[in-house]
Amino acid sequence: MDSGIRGQPEERVSEVDQVSHLAVDIGGSLIKLVYSSSNETSGVEKGETASDDILEVSNGSDNYPIHYGRLHFAKFETSKINDCLEFISSKQLCRSGSWHHVTSDNHRIAIKATGGGAYKFADLFKEKLGVSLDKVDEMDCLVAGANFLLKVDGDGKFERVSGTSVGGGTFWGLGRLLTKCKSFDELLELSYSGNNRVIDMLVGDIYGGTDYTKIGLSSTTIASSFGKAISENKELQDYRPEDVSRSLLRMISNNIGQIAYLNALRFGLKRIFFGGFFIRGHPYTMDTISVAVQFWSKGEAEAMFLRHEGFLGALGAFVSHESHSLGTS
Amino acid sequence: MDSGIRGQPEERVSEVDQVSHLAVDIGGSLIKLVYSSSNETSGVEKGETASDDILEVSNGSDNYPIHYGRLHFAKFETSKINDCLEFISSKQLCRSGSWHHVTSDNHRIAIKATGGGAYKFADLFKEKLGVSLDKVDEMDCLVAGANFLLKVDGDGKFERVSGTSVGGGTFWGLGRLLTKCKSFDELLELSYSGNNRVIDMLVGDIYGGTDYTKIGLSSTTIASSFGKAISENKELQDYRPEDVSRSLLRMISNNIGQIAYLNALRFGLKRIFFGGFFIRGHPYTMDTISVAVQFWSKGEAEAMFLRHEGFLGALGAFVSHESHSLGTS
Repeated sequence: MDSGIRGQPEERVSEVDQVSHLAVDIGGSLIKLVYSSSNETSGVEKGETASDDILEVSNGSDNYPIHYGRLHFAKFETSKINDCLEFISSKQLCRSGSWHHVTSDNHRIAIKATGGGAYKFADLFKEKLGVSLDKVDEMDCLVAGANFLLKVDGDGKFERVSGTSVGGGTFWGLGRLLTKCKSFDELLELSYSGNNRVIDMLVGDIYGGTDYTKIGLSSTTIASSFGKAISENKELQDYRPEDVSRSLLRMISNNIGQIAYLNALRFGLKRIFFGGFFIRGHPYTMDTISVAVQFWSKGEAEAMFLRHEGFLGALGAFVSHESHSLGTS
Repeated sequence: MDSGIRGQPEERVSEVDQVSHLAVDIGGSLIKLVYSSSNETSGVEKGETASDDILEVSNGSDNYPIHYGRLHFAKFETSKINDCLEFISSKQLCRSGSWHHVTSDNHRIAIKATGGGAYKFADLFKEKLGVSLDKVDEMDCLVAGANFLLKVDGDGKFERVSGTSVGGGTFWGLGRLLTKCKSFDELLELSYSGNNRVIDMLVGDIYGGTDYTKIGLSSTTIASSFGKAISENKELQDYRPEDVSRSLLRMISNNIGQIAYLNALRFGLKRIFFGGFFIRGHPYTMDTISVAVQFWSKGEAEAMFLRHEGFLGALGAFVSHESHSLGTS
């Protein structure tokens, strides 16, 4: 895949000079697109839901001998999959599949796709865009995407050692129920001006303002997330959404940091890479996760973050090898 | 402390025949009392907030050479500490402190007390009941309480290896904000008739009803707690409180089970004892924690529960040795 395109019919060359490759990662809450263009003019215009993140990849690593030109990153809420299909259609991205599953019907196009939605929405892509989804395993893609960003020569071997149901979906799901926020980003932004001490029960709240020094807990350590909300004097509407959002973010970031660290311990790892849309480059989220890893590891372990971390799966699908393919439908 | 009473003034003997000993554990959300009586008639009447749990301890273990008679367990919300003080006063429990810190003032009474509130509310106890709180370290008490219930000859050595801010306070705090429940128990009871699949995003929801077999996740595994609540079509009032409560309980129980298991792994432990008011003998909570430990450990570890698990700290204070005392104020 020297040019990022394989088995492509000749008449499409001019098209592909502009948009040469597309891969999708369809998760439970978000659809992530990664596609490449070989010149700047074909860059995606900033839309309501599409991100305009662009990554210059002029020279691929040895492991990925590619020349993609510019990589584009776009996302849509999975519930608005029709917007995504329309975006693909209007940008003519669906004409840029990798076409390596060309059948007797020369125009059969396959897009590399990962995430559960690659199964769930296969028929919809077929019906609306006339393209097949060439499914690539989700974990394979995450690892390939991380390796791509790290420019690491991975050997493709990995093990899924744990997981958690408490993450970005929980932040946004609980956040929507608790505040009037209309979007994940709005909720996250609110948290910046919030104060979690209004709702969280701190060690100092229990110990009358003092630390619990014997076990090394300062008075500001959170003893119970949302623990102050048990008060009978206040209802949901009496709390500022900023404070609710902040408590939620700290609860989830701390928890993710702790579970990640405990798993890293099992394998003697000191550096933990975090990815996923929960993070998306937001400094406070990264800071909270970093602090959590530092806290639980007593400074022994470190949290690491990658740019474009939300697109690991889509990137992995984008650079996927045929060996990862789970079959086309 | 053969009779559970030390240095007690003679004129109080008849009183103490009925209620012989009192200890308190004052946490951020709940105050737990443990006290003993030597005959049945002095048992606590069931009140609004007082539990009527009674444990017969006719023969103490070698490690705790005691003859308490009946142990009584009572709890109050910390926010209603005045109810607790009134209860102690009306039951004349405060006349039954262990009095081993008798000063020149013969009537100075000290109650064994643990939890952060032993610091925070020391002055209040002094003012309202005229008693001093003889503080006992919280972790020491937890271990002593667990050993007392297990009848294990512990050597008093322990290490606090981890913790979490996500527990009973979070369940009740978030639950109060999300539902109209008036009590922890009401919220917990609601969860029994709830269905978490309405609000949680399951693996099957993402994968179009199928399992993600490659990594051993069934379609009913929770992929994202509260992940379905990101839907724009539903607001908080559109969800049944039963379902909200169920999702919350599963999120927290799963999380506690996972963190406990990951910590147990560090020390090669196969049996994990769970305590605290979050559990309180509720079958569904214990079941969810058990399933979580089984799930994360792939059947290698096991969750264990003790009766009266919510009173570990108070029990530990009750049986505490002078060596645990942190001083009276």
